[in-house]
Amino acid sequence: MTRRAYVHRIAAASPDDTSGIEAAIAAGRIDPSGIVAIFGKTEGNGCVNDFARGFATQSLGLMLKQHMSAEAAHAVCLVMSGGTEGGMSPHWTVFERRDTDEAPAGGPALAIGRTRTPVLPFCDLGRVAEVDMVAAGVRAAMQDAGIDDPDDVHFVQIKCPLLTVQRIGEAEAQGGTVATRDTLKSMGLSRAASALGVGVALGEIGRDQIGDGRIAADWSLWSGRASCSSGIELLDHEIVVLGTSPNWSGPLVIDHAVMSDGIDIEPVRAALRRLGFAADGQLSAAERTRLVALLSKAEASHDGKIRGHRHTMLDDSDISATRHARAFVCGALAGLVGHAEIYVSGGAEHQGPDGGGPVAVIAERVIPNA
Amino acid sequence: MTRRAYVHRIAAASPDDTSGIEAAIAAGRIDPSGIVAIFGKTEGNGCVNDFARGFATQSLGLMLKQHMSAEAAHAVCLVMSGGTEGGMSPHWTVFERRDTDEAPAGGPALAIGRTRTPVLPFCDLGRVAEVDMVAAGVRAAMQDAGIDDPDDVHFVQIKCPLLTVQRIGEAEAQGGTVATRDTLKSMGLSRAASALGVGVALGEIGRDQIGDGRIAADWSLWSGRASCSSGIELLDHEIVVLGTSPNWSGPLVIDHAVMSDGIDIEPVRAALRRLGFAADGQLSAAERTRLVALLSKAEASHDGKIRGHRHTMLDDSDISATRHARAFVCGALAGLVGHAEIYVSGGAEHQGPDGGGPVAVIAERVIPNA
Amino acid sequence: MTRRAYVHRIAAASPDDTSGIEAAIAAGRIDPSGIVAIFGKTEGNGCVNDFARGFATQSLGLMLKQHMSAEAAHAVCLVMSGGTEGGMSPHWTVFERRDTDEAPAGGPALAIGRTRTPVLPFCDLGRVAEVDMVAAGVRAAMQDAGIDDPDDVHFVQIKCPLLTVQRIGEAEAQGGTVATRDTLKSMGLSRAASALGVGVALGEIGRDQIGDGRIAADWSLWSGRASCSSGIELLDHEIVVLGTSPNWSGPLVIDHAVMSDGIDIEPVRAALRRLGFAADGQLSAAERTRLVALLSKAEASHDGKIRGHRHTMLDDSDISATRHARAFVCGALAGLVGHAEIYVSGGAEHQGPDGGGPVAVIAERVIPNA
Amino acid sequence: MTRRAYVHRIAAASPDDTSGIEAAIAAGRIDPSGIVAIFGKTEGNGCVNDFARGFATQSLGLMLKQHMSAEAAHAVCLVMSGGTEGGMSPHWTVFERRDTDEAPAGGPALAIGRTRTPVLPFCDLGRVAEVDMVAAGVRAAMQDAGIDDPDDVHFVQIKCPLLTVQRIGEAEAQGGTVATRDTLKSMGLSRAASALGVGVALGEIGRDQIGDGRIAADWSLWSGRASCSSGIELLDHEIVVLGTSPNWSGPLVIDHAVMSDGIDIEPVRAALRRLGFAADGQLSAAERTRLVALLSKAEASHDGKIRGHRHTMLDDSDISATRHARAFVCGALAGLVGHAEIYVSGGAEHQGPDGGGPVAVIAERVIPNA
Repeated sequence: MTRRAYVHRIAAASPDDTSGIEAAIAAGRIDPSGIVAIFGKTEGNGCVNDFARGFATQSLGLMLKQHMSAEAAHAVCLVMSGGTEGGMSPHWTVFERRDTDEAPAGGPALAIGRTRTPVLPFCDLGRVAEVDMVAAGVRAAMQDAGIDDPDDVHFVQIKCPLLTVQRIGEAEAQGGTVATRDTLKSMGLSRAASALGVGVALGEIGRDQIGDGRIAADWSLWSGRASCSSGIELLDHEIVVLGTSPNWSGPLVIDHAVMSDGIDIEPVRAALRRLGFAADGQLSAAERTRLVALLSKAEASHDGKIRGHRHTMLDDSDISATRHARAFVCGALAGLVGHAEIYVSGGAEHQGPDGGGPVAVIAERVIPNA
Repeated sequence: MTRRAYVHRIAAASPDDTSGIEAAIAAGRIDPSGIVAIFGKTEGNGCVNDFARGFATQSLGLMLKQHMSAEAAHAVCLVMSGGTEGGMSPHWTVFERRDTDEAPAGGPALAIGRTRTPVLPFCDLGRVAEVDMVAAGVRAAMQDAGIDDPDDVHFVQIKCPLLTVQRIGEAEAQGGTVATRDTLKSMGLSRAASALGVGVALGEIGRDQIGDGRIAADWSLWSGRASCSSGIELLDHEIVVLGTSPNWSGPLVIDHAVMSDGIDIEPVRAALRRLGFAADGQLSAAERTRLVALLSKAEASHDGKIRGHRHTMLDDSDISATRHARAFVCGALAGLVGHAEIYVSGGAEHQGPDGGGPVAVIAERVIPNA
Repeated sequence: MTRRAYVHRIAAASPDDTSGIEAAIAAGRIDPSGIVAIFGKTEGNGCVNDFARGFATQSLGLMLKQHMSAEAAHAVCLVMSGGTEGGMSPHWTVFERRDTDEAPAGGPALAIGRTRTPVLPFCDLGRVAEVDMVAAGVRAAMQDAGIDDPDDVHFVQIKCPLLTVQRIGEAEAQGGTVATRDTLKSMGLSRAASALGVGVALGEIGRDQIGDGRIAADWSLWSGRASCSSGIELLDHEIVVLGTSPNWSGPLVIDHAVMSDGIDIEPVRAALRRLGFAADGQLSAAERTRLVALLSKAEASHDGKIRGHRHTMLDDSDISATRHARAFVCGALAGLVGHAEIYVSGGAEHQGPDGGGPVAVIAERVIPNA
Repeated sequence: MTRRAYVHRIAAASPDDTSGIEAAIAAGRIDPSGIVAIFGKTEGNGCVNDFARGFATQSLGLMLKQHMSAEAAHAVCLVMSGGTEGGMSPHWTVFERRDTDEAPAGGPALAIGRTRTPVLPFCDLGRVAEVDMVAAGVRAAMQDAGIDDPDDVHFVQIKCPLLTVQRIGEAEAQGGTVATRDTLKSMGLSRAASALGVGVALGEIGRDQIGDGRIAADWSLWSGRASCSSGIELLDHEIVVLGTSPNWSGPLVIDHAVMSDGIDIEPVRAALRRLGFAADGQLSAAERTRLVALLSKAEASHDGKIRGHRHTMLDDSDISATRHARAFVCGALAGLVGHAEIYVSGGAEHQGPDGGGPVAVIAERVIPNA
């Protein structure tokens, strides 16, 4: 008896287009009872007033309820990351796990865990209390995956809440103070605190290094495996841990890389090679079929530069910096892997070094002599 | 006696920041009397109401007039391409040529020619009359460069006019009809007609294949060496031809590639290798010093797809497709060459195949045994 | 036995916030079985990729199904108009009608009719076939309201479809041609054809005046009572007719005005006065309580001017002209009526004269000697 | 001997279109030697990367130098306010003063004063030091106008600097700290401190009420006569005081109003009536000829509401709140005065109550029995 992970990458024609997932269920490729998480790249602006995420979440929930109880549907982690700038292609990544009679993979196989945290008080957003809440959540999700060693974790996806004018009003009406009254900035603070929580849980950052004043401020603190998106549609945190375990079965494997800036693709190439890809130049069409999913973060470096050259992302009042960064980093990664149906999520505060970010590669294992 | 080409890539802190060029003149690195063209990547939206281009043009003109007569300053081709989306870095590329006592390079060396066309009647914009005007201009610029064989031309940069509501009004008041009353669309039509003019002049497209109805419509017609930008600040066309000639001297060489879509970087890698770069993976820091300039076009494919995956650029009413495409293609190219101070110009109608575009690489020749 | 119209204006905290409607149902202020239409001002961009409309439509549908059969819920006309620019406040306007024992109002009272047309073939969008389909639909909706005389109709709200890249592809794959391949432009064409359909049905425009070439082209043709919104979320037309009838009961009345440009508020003031408002200067807080709903259209004039002064809406590539116009016209109307929870819908092609638009005022009748 | 003020409102076809001013000079309507200030409404985004302002400033400077020494041209206060959203019409307002033999007006006549402050250290921006610098500047400009009583001041226009990523870097490199590292926010802080400076100078706010923590935070502090714009193109403050004096001559008068929110037009109507306009409903075409200039501020209220209804300006990540507010308030004011060639400047921090703003009306005096 082992558990086996399945990852399905499925195109979405719009934020409410769940037809591809439903077709996969109908065809038996997906067993809905095993779905633990769905990541969506949805085509909104990825910022405060991005209702495409909520629309997708609602639509996925309706779809899931056709196949399971409302309670079970609610337990599925739906992580919608808004913004498909540049050539990025809107799509779903469905994570499924099944109990199986197969023997363990005979080496590390993809393992998936998940959890939800309690609801975050609005006044805790962007503060140490959020870091601690997330760190506890990551540990719970590792346990859910059966991963003991933090080094075996390659990606932690978190969906965290944000502040709106109304939420700030509520918090203040109750006598509280919020970390920021700027709603767009609240998205960054929530991602920042969540990422630090991952870093603490994985042993990348010492808990004693964290203070309110360093959240979204001290960019020397970062996790190389955290990916955090904030959204208007939830009040708690959804956490999905992706790693490897010798106790899981199936052909899927995962590795990760850390880009030091928005064009630093060589570490990703190295990760691809560790997973058996030739990756000389752009992935060939043949190799591309083994690439199951590419998950990454993107952000504009806070010093306004990339390798010494000025960028204009932070000074642009027409297009938010997160949108610029997603389009750009997606281009760099697509140039490497040969397609743009990849998951690039904006706002990489404490997720990789300033201006860079973590990248996870999920692939099918090369079968020797096949 | 030969002519020698110089190409200077200089950062710009804002559209009116000519200080880097002035410093190079003061230091003797640029001889202003030899400046034939300045390409600018300026940080506007690159669309109709992008005044950063005009601001840059005015600022460069004022700077040039400090060093030459008003007439000579006016003769310099100033090609401002708006839009530095993603991590693209605003910069100037100054093209200079000098008479020299040096012997010919002993092989093809970078050769530069330029011209300006007559003023284009507003009613001719986007129509066959503009194609013919540009084709004649390209031939004149080749002659100016001393290039006889169209195959020796690797890049033709054209700045062409656009329509505004006022210009349309003028044309219609005189009883004329314009090709479009949509100002943003007029930018595309003008680029399209100009690109076809290049294709005709270089023998890539037969003159008999062109008709009004095929301009910005029949994407099977394209030039692999045309790069056209439209701008509000001129009423004629500025044309700069970059190619090679055995009669020029100096260390600079040029080659070109055609990307078949926005992530098709392998032809660019091949061009780099033809110019002596190893280009295994991303250019190393050492190799990067030999890369003088990278000039390219970007656009969203009209079928809404990249290698079979849907993109959302054409359906986005918040950010124009040209802005998405520039950010994305700049990312792909920067991932290859290792920096983002590159010239990616939007709107590649008939400039390369639909969704792709031409790329020119200007580099210093590898010195054998050096 | 008469029919009585109810109109409920209810704030929305987000596109999926139906809590205000649900509270009104719970409190008995709304009888869900009588709901015939809900107009929503939702906070997207109001253009092609505005998913807030679809999100609202799905949310309202889910809410309605809590109170009626799926079939009955589907019959409710949901007209979502995206874009709450400037100070415009997102809200729902719920139109309800009930059979009642009350005597007729003793004068004209608000009467409501509605219908849905067949699905529009993509190739018919923006063409005469769409005009005819809509004209037939308006007549059906008048009949549903029990209004015989077109002069008693004061507002016709239509929600019409648009083209996306995918729909264009489908149409062309079947050998058809579409009126435009520009998706944003398709929204305008669909609104234009629909408005002409209203004008034909109400006798404002002769059917013989209409031809494909005059749709979204000959602005001398217009209806003073049409309001059309296009949306990605439907393939047919939803039509709601608002007018007066001596056979209906209740305190509500309606009148309309035509603004000749975006700041022409005096005709609206005149309509308010016909409905018994003093309307000297801005409506007083006391008078405001009688104003039930203000419905209007906004658009940028195609000559680029307002009363001789240039506007920049059509030349702006960062913000679409429809967004500018909604913010601006909402300001003008809010200055008159004293609040901004008004329904201003963008894109007024053939809906009022070029640059202007129809406005409907729904109010409670002044009770004599009260 | 008196001084006489002239105010010329002149359309601009683009940020560099000074042809209207030049025509007025050529025709003798403007004597360039008397120009003290030019206010421009220019068509950029009005935010950080709005280069239209700099382009206009450079263009006006070049134009002025055709008519006066470089030193005299530099002394002219050029206040460019970016953003002509909605139907707002780009235009210049040229303020001129001449010595004349005319007798005093026999009552208050428009009086104009101006000054420039020293360069503001980047670390002082948005802090009390900026308040004090501006207060001193306002007093100097009053003295220049010959106005002793602060109550005779009706409008103070200030152009103040902003922070860019580069400027922040410079400040921090020198060991300083800046009030914010968010460039867009720096614009608001600079306007806020400047407005408080006006309030202190005019006796509206006590100097002891000001502290760093209350700038852009305590909205109960405001001036009813301050109008502040921030721009990338200057490092000091340009200050223009408009008021009345019995010692000036000519037909021009000025009064002001304070809007309590974005649609509060009745105080403006009252100001118009104090200046002799009937202003029943919208200004008639005849009355409009006496209206010389309307200057106002606009901003989104920080509680997210207008008269109890939610607005979405602060939650919009596609269009900045200042752009929304300008379009909206311009609509409200244009509805009152009957045209949209008015000066609405965004960002009204401490300029009028939260969400509202000051408005100045400059008009020609009604000639009794004329």
